[in-house]
Amino acid sequence: MSDINNIPYKIYLSESELPKYWYNVRADMKNKPAPLLNPGTLQPMTAAELSGVFCEELVKQELDNDTREYPIPQEIQDFYKMYRPSPLVRAYCLEKKLGTPAKIYYKFEGNNTSGSHKLNSAIAQAYYAKQQGLKGVTTETGAGQWGTALSMACSYFELDCKVYMVKVSYEQKPFRREVMRTYGASVVPSPSDTTAVGRKILEQFPGTTGSLGCAISEAVEVAVSNPGYRYVLGSVLNQVLLHQSVIGVETKIAMDKYGIKPDVIIGCAGGGSNLGGLISPFMGEKLRGEADYQFIAVEPASCPSLTRGKYAYDFCDTGMVCPMAKMYTLGSGFIPAPNHAGGLRYHGMSSILSQLYDDGYMEARAVEQTKVFEAAEEFARVEGILPAPESSHAIRVAIDEALKCKETGEAKTILFGLTGTGYFDMVAYEKYHDGLMSDYIPTDAELQKGFDALPKV
Amino acid sequence: MSDINNIPYKIYLSESELPKYWYNVRADMKNKPAPLLNPGTLQPMTAAELSGVFCEELVKQELDNDTREYPIPQEIQDFYKMYRPSPLVRAYCLEKKLGTPAKIYYKFEGNNTSGSHKLNSAIAQAYYAKQQGLKGVTTETGAGQWGTALSMACSYFELDCKVYMVKVSYEQKPFRREVMRTYGASVVPSPSDTTAVGRKILEQFPGTTGSLGCAISEAVEVAVSNPGYRYVLGSVLNQVLLHQSVIGVETKIAMDKYGIKPDVIIGCAGGGSNLGGLISPFMGEKLRGEADYQFIAVEPASCPSLTRGKYAYDFCDTGMVCPMAKMYTLGSGFIPAPNHAGGLRYHGMSSILSQLYDDGYMEARAVEQTKVFEAAEEFARVEGILPAPESSHAIRVAIDEALKCKETGEAKTILFGLTGTGYFDMVAYEKYHDGLMSDYIPTDAELQKGFDALPKV
Repeated sequence: MSDINNIPYKIYLSESELPKYWYNVRADMKNKPAPLLNPGTLQPMTAAELSGVFCEELVKQELDNDTREYPIPQEIQDFYKMYRPSPLVRAYCLEKKLGTPAKIYYKFEGNNTSGSHKLNSAIAQAYYAKQQGLKGVTTETGAGQWGTALSMACSYFELDCKVYMVKVSYEQKPFRREVMRTYGASVVPSPSDTTAVGRKILEQFPGTTGSLGCAISEAVEVAVSNPGYRYVLGSVLNQVLLHQSVIGVETKIAMDKYGIKPDVIIGCAGGGSNLGGLISPFMGEKLRGEADYQFIAVEPASCPSLTRGKYAYDFCDTGMVCPMAKMYTLGSGFIPAPNHAGGLRYHGMSSILSQLYDDGYMEARAVEQTKVFEAAEEFARVEGILPAPESSHAIRVAIDEALKCKETGEAKTILFGLTGTGYFDMVAYEKYHDGLMSDYIPTDAELQKGFDALPKV
Repeated sequence: MSDINNIPYKIYLSESELPKYWYNVRADMKNKPAPLLNPGTLQPMTAAELSGVFCEELVKQELDNDTREYPIPQEIQDFYKMYRPSPLVRAYCLEKKLGTPAKIYYKFEGNNTSGSHKLNSAIAQAYYAKQQGLKGVTTETGAGQWGTALSMACSYFELDCKVYMVKVSYEQKPFRREVMRTYGASVVPSPSDTTAVGRKILEQFPGTTGSLGCAISEAVEVAVSNPGYRYVLGSVLNQVLLHQSVIGVETKIAMDKYGIKPDVIIGCAGGGSNLGGLISPFMGEKLRGEADYQFIAVEPASCPSLTRGKYAYDFCDTGMVCPMAKMYTLGSGFIPAPNHAGGLRYHGMSSILSQLYDDGYMEARAVEQTKVFEAAEEFARVEGILPAPESSHAIRVAIDEALKCKETGEAKTILFGLTGTGYFDMVAYEKYHDGLMSDYIPTDAELQKGFDALPKV
């Protein structure tokens, strides 16, 4: 089960080989990502403006387009050791099943209790909040991966953690809620009567089941109106991609150690945290002209921000309380069709990835969710891991690429990010098993409504 | 985060260091475990009798008290590489939190999709079924860990897998059911109308929600009445402890590598598969007089087979269709009180462990479930892993022992088995968080009823 180069089935770096720094891809971008804008003045957000909402060190990271390497503080390295390195796995069984000459590798980030890569940034954000002497942080969560990761991180640093969870998820995903409570977080269904904005929304829409935009608004309100609290976010932001670069740096160290060079690097893309983290150091080499790689972002056909969105300034949240970001977007009011079960529902995309995509450094593919679950099940049966629906978007395209190799006879090396596990997504799997899952591709007219509502900047 | 001997936070063996054999502790026992009896003749079950129900190679393993080492077939070693080695973790954060001089290690078996150690035996049993040219296997499952593990194993070897799942679990744990379906298993709520025994039970008790004993009866009926099928079981049996010895052998290789010698070894005990697997090679040294260790089996106070049961021949199943085993038992009709949420519900105990306990080689402790969940949550918050309720019994006693060390100042080395994750047990955690969990210790009079019903052998 290992090939002639003695490459093990799973590559685990030793503790001494683990990354000591995060890599900031912005330092190597000629066209820097566009700055966040103050929605009132339409001027770039200053550090002073941002630090009412975010921790100071995180504001610095958010605005820093120049520093190439950020040393990872020792306390964060220590926490990383509890669940990292994540294994880089050679998918021998999947290759055999597909009969492909391609070599497939995946970086598996699901081997921790939060079940995903989100913990990489949650622990960093909690650390800086603690360093600043804060009492706690607030955030929103939809499906719950980010809320779970943040709860774990806050528990470790003994910070208070208030999570506003979209009400429909709160009710439909009680287990996610209980995991967060196990880690000591208080979880509030949103909209709630604990905030002014929540009360206003409940008054206007008495039966509402909530939205991510509303939960963000509540979390931000609580953060800015309670001394000693700040708001934290699990994707989209530059700081998050910086922390998530630990995925890519670790992968690169492992691949370099065994002399493996990927031809194609694939990741699913919602807000961009996992994809950005995985590709960063490889993209750096491409930007510096030192190596070439094919990068593929995979998104749901029902929420196609890169493949069918506009590159424009937009609000980061439906409630329009956050700064505006320039990104590929479907409009901040866009909500995927009700039959959408596969995650990656965000209307926009990380500014860094949007710029790289616009500059032609990265491709994007949109895939339909029934095909995604088909790939998920095929993968689970041979590789043993039950993948999250989000991660399965990357599996879909990795399989597609491997099958192309089968046709052409090329022995490409394919690397993809397996961001997490699907233990809390069995409702979606059940739909798939029962033949109740369908696909929906928004029409051009539907998308146009979102574009028409974009702010005029 | 590593001590003076340069012991890493998590010890991962390399692939070349992984165990090549299972260790059969029976070979080193002076008093061998008592043989299974044919309930009709009260004579020891012969290989011929057993092979109508079980695969031939597994019957051989079941009856073999002499062979010390069984080479692990290459195909099983290859599968093990997909999720093994399991990490041996130094619980630095827990030690710090407790302020104990003790050194705590745990062997974490939950890093695979089945979420527990059960996969170690499931893949072996599926392999031998495949080798024998069988079409498929049948089994029962309660909470679903074993059923999930077997589904994964059968999917890998392309065997048909029929799981009879206790009806109340089938309805209350739909997610477990969906994981099994993802791996291609057919899952039938038991009692069902697919078997004679199921139809009979449904006629007698129309509203019954099922029991493990009934599910076993159905699974056995289907196995013996369908050519090309056999029945498989996930605990209690000698063969299962043999396969699970991979846990202990791996642990011992890792500890020997770094010169660590445990003083106390702790495991939770239901049917005994995890505890038996973990302690086997260490127990072997003790039996051969080469080293001494303190072994502690931990069971729920509500199902106290070792601490309060009788050492006697009893039926392995409530339906009384299986052979009789000599073991510590509460009687095959024993069912824990309805408030019991912590797993480990089996009325008896592995014959091997029963004999070792009776011979004084091992201690046992019974713990109450609220104290178990308290330990689970304390562990989760500092060590990051969300433990299964079953595994948390071992955590409870590990913490108790570490706190004793704090009092006495002893720097003991404590090793415990962390058998799995609690992602599918959040209903129990919710009860605990909401203060709705209570304890129940059966009275002597209640236990006496079970003892009175023991078969007269």
